[in-house]
Amino acid sequence: MNTIPDEILNCLCTNQRFLILLHQKPDGDAIGSAVALGKGLKQLNKTVDYYIDLPLEDKLEFFDEIQYFNQVLQDDYDVIIYLDCSSSSFAFSPAEMPAAKIRLVIDHHKSNAHYGDLNFVEITGATAEIVFRVLRGLNVVFDEEMADAIFTGITTDTGSFQFSNVTVDTHLIASELYAIKTNYAHLSKRLHTQKNINQMKMTGAAIHSLEILDSMPIAMMILDHETIVKFGGTINITDDVANLGQNTIGVAITALLKEIDPGEYRVSLRAKYPYDIHEIALKYGGGGHERAAGFNFCGDVGELKRDLMEVCANQNGEA
Amino acid sequence: MNTIPDEILNCLCTNQRFLILLHQKPDGDAIGSAVALGKGLKQLNKTVDYYIDLPLEDKLEFFDEIQYFNQVLQDDYDVIIYLDCSSSSFAFSPAEMPAAKIRLVIDHHKSNAHYGDLNFVEITGATAEIVFRVLRGLNVVFDEEMADAIFTGITTDTGSFQFSNVTVDTHLIASELYAIKTNYAHLSKRLHTQKNINQMKMTGAAIHSLEILDSMPIAMMILDHETIVKFGGTINITDDVANLGQNTIGVAITALLKEIDPGEYRVSLRAKYPYDIHEIALKYGGGGHERAAGFNFCGDVGELKRDLMEVCANQNGEA
Repeated sequence: MNTIPDEILNCLCTNQRFLILLHQKPDGDAIGSAVALGKGLKQLNKTVDYYIDLPLEDKLEFFDEIQYFNQVLQDDYDVIIYLDCSSSSFAFSPAEMPAAKIRLVIDHHKSNAHYGDLNFVEITGATAEIVFRVLRGLNVVFDEEMADAIFTGITTDTGSFQFSNVTVDTHLIASELYAIKTNYAHLSKRLHTQKNINQMKMTGAAIHSLEILDSMPIAMMILDHETIVKFGGTINITDDVANLGQNTIGVAITALLKEIDPGEYRVSLRAKYPYDIHEIALKYGGGGHERAAGFNFCGDVGELKRDLMEVCANQNGEA
Repeated sequence: MNTIPDEILNCLCTNQRFLILLHQKPDGDAIGSAVALGKGLKQLNKTVDYYIDLPLEDKLEFFDEIQYFNQVLQDDYDVIIYLDCSSSSFAFSPAEMPAAKIRLVIDHHKSNAHYGDLNFVEITGATAEIVFRVLRGLNVVFDEEMADAIFTGITTDTGSFQFSNVTVDTHLIASELYAIKTNYAHLSKRLHTQKNINQMKMTGAAIHSLEILDSMPIAMMILDHETIVKFGGTINITDDVANLGQNTIGVAITALLKEIDPGEYRVSLRAKYPYDIHEIALKYGGGGHERAAGFNFCGDVGELKRDLMEVCANQNGEA
């Protein structure tokens, strides 16, 4: 396993008052990293505050440490830790940012802008992997909640060890977690497979609408307004619904059209390499990445389908 | 990592002609274990034959080594290896079983009957974990196909590292596989998420039919004959469809009713601890385990629903 730079360990050892910030809508990696790092620093008799965007997804709300989130905010800190935030604008920051001697960035995003006074950025499967190594470097003893927190970060950001960001270290760290606590099956189920009945029904409705357009490898799914209302609103459209089309053999691009209000759509696009759906999202005033992008849409759904077919055809060099 | 008994390594080192047998309808762990062990023994200049129940699921058909399955069968062998078979009756055996000096059992099932002359049985996440350790013990060099084979065994039998059978060793072995080959994302996708359009549609139809009975934690899903025919027959009902109900929060027992022929149902039952659906399967002339069982059914579906509610109520001590 790679080691941690001395200056990072020194910064954490020699300072006393820490504030942890995460990105907006914190995911499993952000929350898991915050819980483990916060508890680890407290074990070393540091004071730790958290400023974190709430509420969390139900599935992440099981950590005891969450009771300490957003309880106090001092005027100044020794160190503000930007955790799992690729840029400072991506972080969920207080309206009045406290003063700090040092801004420390700990992150695993390739796109990280190194905006801190100290930056520890490595391209790992999850920020939680880096936090684990940092805490080992500080000789912190892991309790079961901290092991759960690191596991949560790793398993959510690697798609249960399935994504291309998994490395030798990812599994080495997981093996160390199993030495702390022997069974993560219940946690895995909570994070990856459990849905409430309305989320399940929303998934079924999306698959029911799944249509592969002509002979092109483009899939379309539509959740109309009536369906969304029937199953409890957009909060019940889970992240994986947009991926269902992508899990269909032969599909390269998927558009999930969510009719948020009557006639108004939020469109989630997903693409496989080498397809690039960023440009179509831009064309419709949206944004995102090459393989995952989105936009809002009011208009002729038939026109949208034709546009998507055109993008796909162009990328095949057929048009 | 635990070591391998010397007598097992000696048996594999000192003999020359091997036959590998697997259980019927071999799964990812059986096939992965066979491919890795067969190739490993060949690397040591042994002759290896395979006698394996074919055809395989599409998703498992990517190993080059499969071309050597069932090509020859000698009258006798030095060693017949029963791989991933909990009992000899569970093994897919030749009509005329060849003679052998030694019957060697390598398996990870708790229920293994130790029916060999030599038995190497450990309760691990996958038989592939044991095969990996055996081959390391024999100083075999892993190529990428062998790494894929071990990974296939582990990831399929542990539900992508999510089940309660995962241990420290499971992840240590996975970390060694990543040192051989850096990316298993494509393989993971193939084994866990990819479905053809008809399998996807069948999944959607099952969710569409998902019904939670009254206030009881029992879910029912029905795939009627018309639906099954429309989406290509029972071959397209993937294993995970029966689990969809179980993935719904609050559901303890799921019944998936597949109308195989008009009016004739194959019922798959799933239960969570402490619910036991074995008895209802027996009552209908079927069988299985406490948490996964099944039976065939011709009759009144309403009556079946009432029976299931009764079982569930009894197990809650409410009736």
